[in-house]
Amino acid sequence: MPSPAEEPPEAPAPARRGRPGYDQETVLRRAVELFNTQGYDATSVGDLARDLGITKSAIYHHVSSKEALLSAALDEALDGLTAAVDRAVAADPDHTALERLRAVVEESVRILVRHLPAVTLLLRVRGNSEVELSALRRRRTLDEKLARLVTEAVAAGELRDDISPDLISRLLFGTVNSLVEWYRPGGPVGEDELAHAVATLAFEGLRA
Amino acid sequence: MPSPAEEPPEAPAPARRGRPGYDQETVLRRAVELFNTQGYDATSVGDLARDLGITKSAIYHHVSSKEALLSAALDEALDGLTAAVDRAVAADPDHTALERLRAVVEESVRILVRHLPAVTLLLRVRGNSEVELSALRRRRTLDEKLARLVTEAVAAGELRDDISPDLISRLLFGTVNSLVEWYRPGGPVGEDELAHAVATLAFEGLRA
Repeated sequence: MPSPAEEPPEAPAPARRGRPGYDQETVLRRAVELFNTQGYDATSVGDLARDLGITKSAIYHHVSSKEALLSAALDEALDGLTAAVDRAVAADPDHTALERLRAVVEESVRILVRHLPAVTLLLRVRGNSEVELSALRRRRTLDEKLARLVTEAVAAGELRDDISPDLISRLLFGTVNSLVEWYRPGGPVGEDELAHAVATLAFEGLRA
Repeated sequence: MPSPAEEPPEAPAPARRGRPGYDQETVLRRAVELFNTQGYDATSVGDLARDLGITKSAIYHHVSSKEALLSAALDEALDGLTAAVDRAVAADPDHTALERLRAVVEESVRILVRHLPAVTLLLRVRGNSEVELSALRRRRTLDEKLARLVTEAVAAGELRDDISPDLISRLLFGTVNSLVEWYRPGGPVGEDELAHAVATLAFEGLRA
């Protein structure tokens, strides 16, 4: 069990305009970090304003509500993951189900790395509001598409049939999701190495 | 990415004595469930008393403090995992490093299933108090023993050497830990099937 990283994921450096802390992107990045560190429910717009060293009304100049920040962050994560899954599902039929599944796994790892704070937030959502429920519905749609891809690969004899397709799906994407607990960009393991390692472990296994 | 389960892990039915809700084990089980659902910091002894339908002083009859409940739960998870790792490390030298590592993975899955609420709590600890820091130190000791076992298996040529031993450790136990996000006892997948599936995915891979 990897120990948790000491620090929450760092948001990528936002494109700033004007004084630091005043553009919409910076407000969103800091909001996601606070939501991840102290929890969405426990974070107020006042906390965010204090953290950024600006007034609450300066924040409301950029965003309509705390929930709009949550919604934007969850969409950031879900849009990336949905695009990856849809690309794989719609891929050239020359590609086998296994090839397409492997592409989804690698691409999901890359999206997780590039949007780590947003994906971390997504994985913690439990459905406490309409925004969260809507994100969970989008996640479920993704899960269903992935499960179909797994079932197809099992049916084609490309994946082992001694583990149920449903269990394969859960283990496979559980492995991908678990990266948010320890992976930090800028460390010794790059995005491509990580994507390759996860897919290798999952499909080929660790045995020499 | 498996969708999160709708409900937090159910604690195993505690051994009760006297009126329900009044023995120490019941208090501990309910406390762990509340800590997992609403967060340790956000849960007061008053919340726990209300949830159990008893008075705060009835709770203090069984436990000295909220922190004592946290400590007991974290020890429950860590004692099981430590015993599993130590058994593997001390195993008969006839067993290869790979065999011992596989045994640790399977045994860790079983402990996770049997002590799901306590392990879930352990995996969320971030070091906000001396009790949490002490649990993180014990986790780190476990991680180090596991990492040595992985390094040994790579050195013996039993595990692939194109992924660094450190990355193997993190992915391997990340996969195990990710089970807390979706596995619920009493569902279609039993403990042994789960342990076997995780070890098979990790060591043999999913490819047919």
